[in-house]
Amino acid sequence: MNWTVYLSGEIHTDWRLQIMQGAERNTLPVEFTSAVTDHAASDASGDGLGSEADSYWRDHKSAKVNSIRTRTLIERCDIAIVRFGDKYKQWNAAFDAGCCAALGKPYITLHDESIIHPLKEVDAQAMAWAKTPQQVVEVLTHVMKEQGI
Amino acid sequence: MNWTVYLSGEIHTDWRLQIMQGAERNTLPVEFTSAVTDHAASDASGDGLGSEADSYWRDHKSAKVNSIRTRTLIERCDIAIVRFGDKYKQWNAAFDAGCCAALGKPYITLHDESIIHPLKEVDAQAMAWAKTPQQVVEVLTHVMKEQGI
Amino acid sequence: MNWTVYLSGEIHTDWRLQIMQGAERNTLPVEFTSAVTDHAASDASGDGLGSEADSYWRDHKSAKVNSIRTRTLIERCDIAIVRFGDKYKQWNAAFDAGCCAALGKPYITLHDESIIHPLKEVDAQAMAWAKTPQQVVEVLTHVMKEQGI
Amino acid sequence: MNWTVYLSGEIHTDWRLQIMQGAERNTLPVEFTSAVTDHAASDASGDGLGSEADSYWRDHKSAKVNSIRTRTLIERCDIAIVRFGDKYKQWNAAFDAGCCAALGKPYITLHDESIIHPLKEVDAQAMAWAKTPQQVVEVLTHVMKEQGI
Amino acid sequence: MNWTVYLSGEIHTDWRLQIMQGAERNTLPVEFTSAVTDHAASDASGDGLGSEADSYWRDHKSAKVNSIRTRTLIERCDIAIVRFGDKYKQWNAAFDAGCCAALGKPYITLHDESIIHPLKEVDAQAMAWAKTPQQVVEVLTHVMKEQGI
Amino acid sequence: MNWTVYLSGEIHTDWRLQIMQGAERNTLPVEFTSAVTDHAASDASGDGLGSEADSYWRDHKSAKVNSIRTRTLIERCDIAIVRFGDKYKQWNAAFDAGCCAALGKPYITLHDESIIHPLKEVDAQAMAWAKTPQQVVEVLTHVMKEQGI
Amino acid sequence: MNWTVYLSGEIHTDWRLQIMQGAERNTLPVEFTSAVTDHAASDASGDGLGSEADSYWRDHKSAKVNSIRTRTLIERCDIAIVRFGDKYKQWNAAFDAGCCAALGKPYITLHDESIIHPLKEVDAQAMAWAKTPQQVVEVLTHVMKEQGI
Amino acid sequence: MNWTVYLSGEIHTDWRLQIMQGAERNTLPVEFTSAVTDHAASDASGDGLGSEADSYWRDHKSAKVNSIRTRTLIERCDIAIVRFGDKYKQWNAAFDAGCCAALGKPYITLHDESIIHPLKEVDAQAMAWAKTPQQVVEVLTHVMKEQGI
Repeated sequence: MNWTVYLSGEIHTDWRLQIMQGAERNTLPVEFTSAVTDHAASDASGDGLGSEADSYWRDHKSAKVNSIRTRTLIERCDIAIVRFGDKYKQWNAAFDAGCCAALGKPYITLHDESIIHPLKEVDAQAMAWAKTPQQVVEVLTHVMKEQGI
Repeated sequence: MNWTVYLSGEIHTDWRLQIMQGAERNTLPVEFTSAVTDHAASDASGDGLGSEADSYWRDHKSAKVNSIRTRTLIERCDIAIVRFGDKYKQWNAAFDAGCCAALGKPYITLHDESIIHPLKEVDAQAMAWAKTPQQVVEVLTHVMKEQGI
Repeated sequence: MNWTVYLSGEIHTDWRLQIMQGAERNTLPVEFTSAVTDHAASDASGDGLGSEADSYWRDHKSAKVNSIRTRTLIERCDIAIVRFGDKYKQWNAAFDAGCCAALGKPYITLHDESIIHPLKEVDAQAMAWAKTPQQVVEVLTHVMKEQGI
Repeated sequence: MNWTVYLSGEIHTDWRLQIMQGAERNTLPVEFTSAVTDHAASDASGDGLGSEADSYWRDHKSAKVNSIRTRTLIERCDIAIVRFGDKYKQWNAAFDAGCCAALGKPYITLHDESIIHPLKEVDAQAMAWAKTPQQVVEVLTHVMKEQGI
Repeated sequence: MNWTVYLSGEIHTDWRLQIMQGAERNTLPVEFTSAVTDHAASDASGDGLGSEADSYWRDHKSAKVNSIRTRTLIERCDIAIVRFGDKYKQWNAAFDAGCCAALGKPYITLHDESIIHPLKEVDAQAMAWAKTPQQVVEVLTHVMKEQGI
Repeated sequence: MNWTVYLSGEIHTDWRLQIMQGAERNTLPVEFTSAVTDHAASDASGDGLGSEADSYWRDHKSAKVNSIRTRTLIERCDIAIVRFGDKYKQWNAAFDAGCCAALGKPYITLHDESIIHPLKEVDAQAMAWAKTPQQVVEVLTHVMKEQGI
Repeated sequence: MNWTVYLSGEIHTDWRLQIMQGAERNTLPVEFTSAVTDHAASDASGDGLGSEADSYWRDHKSAKVNSIRTRTLIERCDIAIVRFGDKYKQWNAAFDAGCCAALGKPYITLHDESIIHPLKEVDAQAMAWAKTPQQVVEVLTHVMKEQGI
Repeated sequence: MNWTVYLSGEIHTDWRLQIMQGAERNTLPVEFTSAVTDHAASDASGDGLGSEADSYWRDHKSAKVNSIRTRTLIERCDIAIVRFGDKYKQWNAAFDAGCCAALGKPYITLHDESIIHPLKEVDAQAMAWAKTPQQVVEVLTHVMKEQGI
């Protein structure tokens, strides 16, 4: 039984890498997927379709192109990890969590204690709240390793 | 044909009231629904189930009780209006928008120009972006008034 | 048992009116719904959200606002009538028919014999093909009148 | 993560080939699918089931046989490309786009600027509008190449 | 809580009437629906759309018109009663039962002991097998009367 | 906005009555539904369909007849209350909770502290755990009363 | 793109074999599935669970065991072929067709001209009607062979 | 055609092993999945996310972590076997059965005759009731072995 895990949210620290390395150390049967995490490439993903004078429409076109990737990967994942950092609005992470909740996809939030209160609705629908990437790896290991039978 | 419109997000200004008054002026066939917007009541909604020493669990219990209301109302609405103010994280608004996107519910975002960029993923899945409650009323009027036939 | 019938497509002749009058004559228990059929109002439905320099984006905004109405009404109908006239592209009518097919909504096409061949895929998924509004009324009468029991 | 892309619409130019060659150049992990694009074979697909005196029923039978293929491939694709040429009605392309919209399948339209207005409803539900096959390849490359993690 | 019950199958005896009278005697909160049970009207339901030389296509057109009614009523019912008589093929009754099974609609079969074996697959998915209309009324009474609370 | 609440589980105490009276005191816009709670009537619900020599089949027939009611009411409810008493197996209550979880229906469990551990999987998917009927009424009041807007 | 085809219905002639051999001759990328076609084994499939005095319950148990196989295979197929012979009731074939219709699975009926009229409802929802296994092979070949692109 | 079978319920006897060995003896094309059956590991699955003073929340966290595994495996299985032993409450087994019923997953119960009555609702929705692991193997063999065609 192979698993697919979608990694959503903050792109300024190496939490994705830490989770992937931990999963590899534990030889988990898992494929990780993610949005494009190169910030500039993500913002420019619609530029090839023609330039826009208005920055709203530039953002709009790129966000829609990106959504082809993100929405599909979310629908095809078994589990999502949703990371909230201590900076920026990160509304896209909360948006992804809402998608997961409505689609019945279990997700784990990854964030510090300092933002518990504003994240309470997002956490309420999550299956777990982790404070470190290592904790996420522990949960995934419990979930995926075949101690079952 | 009656419509149900869910009003999600920011609770510190009277945007809900403005939309409702506008709808009434235009005699739209609409019922509005919303999360509990009394901040203290919302935070305390789980307190009756027993007090918690740990504030995480207090938040957790209240957020789940609130979600009985919000999730049901979102599933029963035809349209959602999702409002982002200029303060606070408002992750629950983005979360609601994600739910709507995944459920195929059309939603309209309501926010200032200053936060276009961080909201681009949320706007990309929206059916319209409005800057004022009056614009929302205009859109609802177009959508609901029976010029069709 | 009340029925809801969505009237999709061509807006330059009075086929909607003929069907509605026929239904009234036969006292069918039916509510008719439709896109906004005032062409200018439909094209301008997004103008209130701010003017656009680029006509693509003006069209885009209006089409999305209109879709709040059309998509919702299609999802809430029991039956759709999809009318193709002898002029214009009418891709939106074919698009509506595709939505109905995918949602499992039965639809009836209404068009002349002259366009049978280009409409064959749309007709193949339809439950009936009518040449006149009167024929549509006949079918609806058979479907709705309580000879059943 | 492999992707499946359905190519819908116009069959008189080599746009399918251009997209496939571009995808191969970029070594995208993608399988392309399509309706039968041999026009005569498509029109005759039901002939083996018995000849018809009435051309409406010949068209009907063939269109239904073709739909076994097209409907299944649309339901199994991750992304659809819907091409509108400058000739013919191409209602089946708009029909396919409507199916995709209702099924929640992201699609990209491919057409000239000259037909923006009649396609505005179809474009409004699309995730991108491309003017050339090369632009489609660019979008697919952004979506599929693993810059994510 | 009101209920809707669809009555499917055999049209040559008055079993529908017996169930409806029994329900009325027991003042059940129920609305009954059904296919058109006038055999000639049912066979001719597509005739208004144009005559057909080939009887296959005449049947085909009428069956599709009838299905607008039957499929919609099945989707809107809470419970179906599927009656098999001792004559005729009655494949449409078995077809309706299959629809119900796939849609998760509970259904009750109504037939004699003599046809238990050929109906075993249909009975296996049913929630009850009744031999008389009176037994159906008894079951409906148990299901609908508010002894619950 | 009216609500429907399904009351599942233990039938030997008057918890249903207490919740209903509390809801009435608070004038909640709610309709309560429930399985048949008359134990003997529930066990005998299939007897009218013919007696059975084997008690397994008697139980089987009655359970299926009862499921026509329970499954339909669960699918039509907005919220379920699932009550576990201190006696009996009450597997049907846990079964109902599992149905709710899979259907995305929010449910509240009602049970003593003494059975927290064996109910942990059922509680984990619940939106709230109440120890008294009065607590359930409090939660329902928060959820339904229109403080929202 | 591989296809799965479910073969439903009559078990007294070798139509399954003819279709499979035709598919092999044409090297179609297809896996065929089917109910257990050994009549005695099918009737006895529940016997291992304990003998039954009442033949209704023996049939019931076996039919349910068989349905584990048939329902799963129908849900996992891309296309179904439903065969009606000239003998027996074959209600299970009509039942399977109803399941396919409700699940949106395209199916092809295979039967003689002599039973067109009683099968009109089943044929009305089919994507094709074939008179011989060879015709089925022809349709499958058109559907599966990669002339598309 | 490969099958996936989820083994739910009692963890104190070797029934899982007996079924797996029987399936291997019969060379069934099947993958078995299961919850984590190491009781201590299951109870502690959330401990890595931080310790809890209140045992309710410790249970809650672990049960949610476990549900990531169990819910996903249930959604991905073709068949579930639900085992009830003669000790303990085993509400999670009944809960899993309820999930299966609502998701349309066929399941087989495995339990002694002594608990027929309290399990009647769970058995009523099952496709089979087995008393021994060997009977389960027999049913799976009938379902999976390719006698079909």
